[in-house]
Amino acid sequence: METGGAPKHEWVRQVLERELSDGRFPPARPLPPSRRLAERFEVSRTTIDTALQQLVARGQLVSRPRRGFFPVAVTVAEPADDRTAPDRVLWADHLVVRPDPWIDRAVQVPDYQSYPFPFLPGQPEHGSFPVRAWLRAAARAFDGDQGGRATLDAGDGDDAGLCRAIVEEVLLPRGIAARPDEVLITNGAQQALTLIARTLIGAGTRVGMENPGYVDAARIFRNAGAELSLLPVGRQGVRLSDRPDFSLLYLTPSHQHPTNVTMPASRRQAIVDAASAHDLIVIEDDFDSEIRFRGEPQPPLRALDGSGRVIHVGTFSKVLAPALRLGYVVADAALITQLRHARYLSSKHPSGVEQRTLALFIASGDFARQASRQRAALRAKWEVAAEVLGQDFPWPDQALPSGGAGLWLTGPPGYDTTALLDRARQRGVLFQPGGLFFLDTPAPTNQLRLGLSAIPLDRVRPGVQRLIEVI
Amino acid sequence: METGGAPKHEWVRQVLERELSDGRFPPARPLPPSRRLAERFEVSRTTIDTALQQLVARGQLVSRPRRGFFPVAVTVAEPADDRTAPDRVLWADHLVVRPDPWIDRAVQVPDYQSYPFPFLPGQPEHGSFPVRAWLRAAARAFDGDQGGRATLDAGDGDDAGLCRAIVEEVLLPRGIAARPDEVLITNGAQQALTLIARTLIGAGTRVGMENPGYVDAARIFRNAGAELSLLPVGRQGVRLSDRPDFSLLYLTPSHQHPTNVTMPASRRQAIVDAASAHDLIVIEDDFDSEIRFRGEPQPPLRALDGSGRVIHVGTFSKVLAPALRLGYVVADAALITQLRHARYLSSKHPSGVEQRTLALFIASGDFARQASRQRAALRAKWEVAAEVLGQDFPWPDQALPSGGAGLWLTGPPGYDTTALLDRARQRGVLFQPGGLFFLDTPAPTNQLRLGLSAIPLDRVRPGVQRLIEVI
Repeated sequence: METGGAPKHEWVRQVLERELSDGRFPPARPLPPSRRLAERFEVSRTTIDTALQQLVARGQLVSRPRRGFFPVAVTVAEPADDRTAPDRVLWADHLVVRPDPWIDRAVQVPDYQSYPFPFLPGQPEHGSFPVRAWLRAAARAFDGDQGGRATLDAGDGDDAGLCRAIVEEVLLPRGIAARPDEVLITNGAQQALTLIARTLIGAGTRVGMENPGYVDAARIFRNAGAELSLLPVGRQGVRLSDRPDFSLLYLTPSHQHPTNVTMPASRRQAIVDAASAHDLIVIEDDFDSEIRFRGEPQPPLRALDGSGRVIHVGTFSKVLAPALRLGYVVADAALITQLRHARYLSSKHPSGVEQRTLALFIASGDFARQASRQRAALRAKWEVAAEVLGQDFPWPDQALPSGGAGLWLTGPPGYDTTALLDRARQRGVLFQPGGLFFLDTPAPTNQLRLGLSAIPLDRVRPGVQRLIEVI
Repeated sequence: METGGAPKHEWVRQVLERELSDGRFPPARPLPPSRRLAERFEVSRTTIDTALQQLVARGQLVSRPRRGFFPVAVTVAEPADDRTAPDRVLWADHLVVRPDPWIDRAVQVPDYQSYPFPFLPGQPEHGSFPVRAWLRAAARAFDGDQGGRATLDAGDGDDAGLCRAIVEEVLLPRGIAARPDEVLITNGAQQALTLIARTLIGAGTRVGMENPGYVDAARIFRNAGAELSLLPVGRQGVRLSDRPDFSLLYLTPSHQHPTNVTMPASRRQAIVDAASAHDLIVIEDDFDSEIRFRGEPQPPLRALDGSGRVIHVGTFSKVLAPALRLGYVVADAALITQLRHARYLSSKHPSGVEQRTLALFIASGDFARQASRQRAALRAKWEVAAEVLGQDFPWPDQALPSGGAGLWLTGPPGYDTTALLDRARQRGVLFQPGGLFFLDTPAPTNQLRLGLSAIPLDRVRPGVQRLIEVI
């Protein structure tokens, strides 16, 4: 018989286990003798005996001397979804909120890899994850005292080594001086934003946001009760009016999401000064500052601010992998304490094992190496894309960004990039219509985002050319 | 000096490490010579040297030839919180909620391992994590197509292999028939409870809870606006009145938290029937059903219910490690969809890498092996504790549970177990005063919980004897 490569006793065990839990054996009677079972499964009696002993060890069978093996009486579930049951629960009567469903803004993620030209952001290129270096760190994560602690319930605490590694190897090079108690590890930037929202946003809190902007952040803030003030994104990012009508401001200054505009230092300073003058809190989402390939790095808002009002959010999703769900918040210790309490109630703490692995991955220098590898890979794609666009692109005067994982392109007024996507898709090209990122309606229809993270380098040139043909 | 069984150099190293990070040694000067340290700690110079070398290896000290050991200068951030800045943010003006701080109910977790007799639950015994098998699964987590997907942003999705493994290898053996779309993976049971609360609890929703009960669950529900109806725990668990005044009921039927009472099947059926009659939703927190060592397994409420109103919550914290933060919810697909939306906004999804690792760990049979190992280890401790308590315990008539990770002991009326803990602690014994688990005041003072998960087997007998002496 086909056992799928597993040892035969394992297969026998699984089949019997399923049959036991399906109630195929009457509870008060012994199982058929192992000789009979051996015939049925076409295996040796030793194999049967091994499987039976495993079922005893798992508490599925009891062995009674001279009588044989008996099923442990487990009540088998009636189908939980007998939808005709008269007392069937009606969830609509019980739900107090229905969170918005997730909308897949990356367009067709489930099968994007089957398209030859997936110009999508957010997803890493196949094979870009540093598997070997990560497993090397993982293998050391359980060593020694700190490794022992990595398996414990840490309450509301974090891996001290990871906080230190972030302070020294990630934040200091960015120009941010932070103490370990000013750092909170989160399940990705998403949890960071949720915790901030839960702590600082109540019904009617006004939040300033870039438009177009980061839709998930807008949903998280609205979900917490916020009303949004939308700020148009210019070539230097947003500008604040003399009298901002909001108390909280969410910004992506490194590479504005989704336009990739980098906010220059002078504008940053102006924002920090205005925040101070109007007692605003600023959330700086620094999601891909590592991915910069032109010009000088601009100082993070957190580094310009002496008043403690900038909350800096970072993530390992772009350099490593979004699936790890590891990010962090840098803020005043007083706020970090509140966020830590909120995090405890939400999920206690991010995996201690993953935190420890990441700490070792950073400390070994592997993180810095991976960041330059990712930067080089994206720069190469960006240069190819920029070159093709510079030569043949029918829409003139595109502003090219100083970094980030994509290009934001603007067509003639009235052009419809959603209709363009329908045509491009049939020719194997995926991109994101710009309208997806506007937080109000009607959204402009003439923009598109050409993401460069998922597509392999050698597909960039033919992909952009194909897109030009379709346009 | 009493080092709690750990090697002396380990203890010296820990003390010095703490002092170093507290800044007790000036950074530019050598540590006291090892002769002086040996006197101070009352240990040999060899022990001191071993500890110092470990601190060098950990990057806490540098050794300079002929000059001695120096503290490593850790870059201390310039205070980002120059509290004299005129525009200094006042967080009190901005916080909309202040979540309750976490209270360490395990008593002194940070250094519990330095006590010879830590009768604490929740934390795994040192060395019990199956490091080798886990790393074997981790090494395979990136293989093939599914491995490639493990690094991607999964949106609101889960690892399909893990859902299947839970359905087949965890739920079916418990008697629960579930489809994969009735399973949601969560960052531990904590996130499961938070998502359920966010979806089903609004201001004023009444929730029935066992008293004494799971304090974190109570906090999560109250945080979402719930008012609690407290149900006393009898020898068969809670009993519902003819007219329950709540719409949601939270229960821990396998081993009631914290008393370890197992609810018998007849009582379970009565609860399910009453829930159906009164249209209640029941949250069944099945946090350690694997840890059973007496009597027949009782059917989960989810398996008894045909109406879909039981939400079953499980966790891998007890069998594997709480640090992994991996748990799951089993419920009607309609509710799972809502919880999935709420989870996306909170944290997108639990780590794809960890999900994939766990899926392979379960599929290989390692999870079942680990579960029987943990069960055997706890049973052995339980038997020793029960034996000593049966012979010499001054409080008669203790009800012994059928499983679970601890014993709930009741002293004479008016006895004060908090005062007892003060005395026991000085003799190296930790336990939890029962009053910590009551959800109302005044809490009874005469109970205690003797946790068996963290303490090694060979310490159980002397530890219980020591406790009896102190009593």
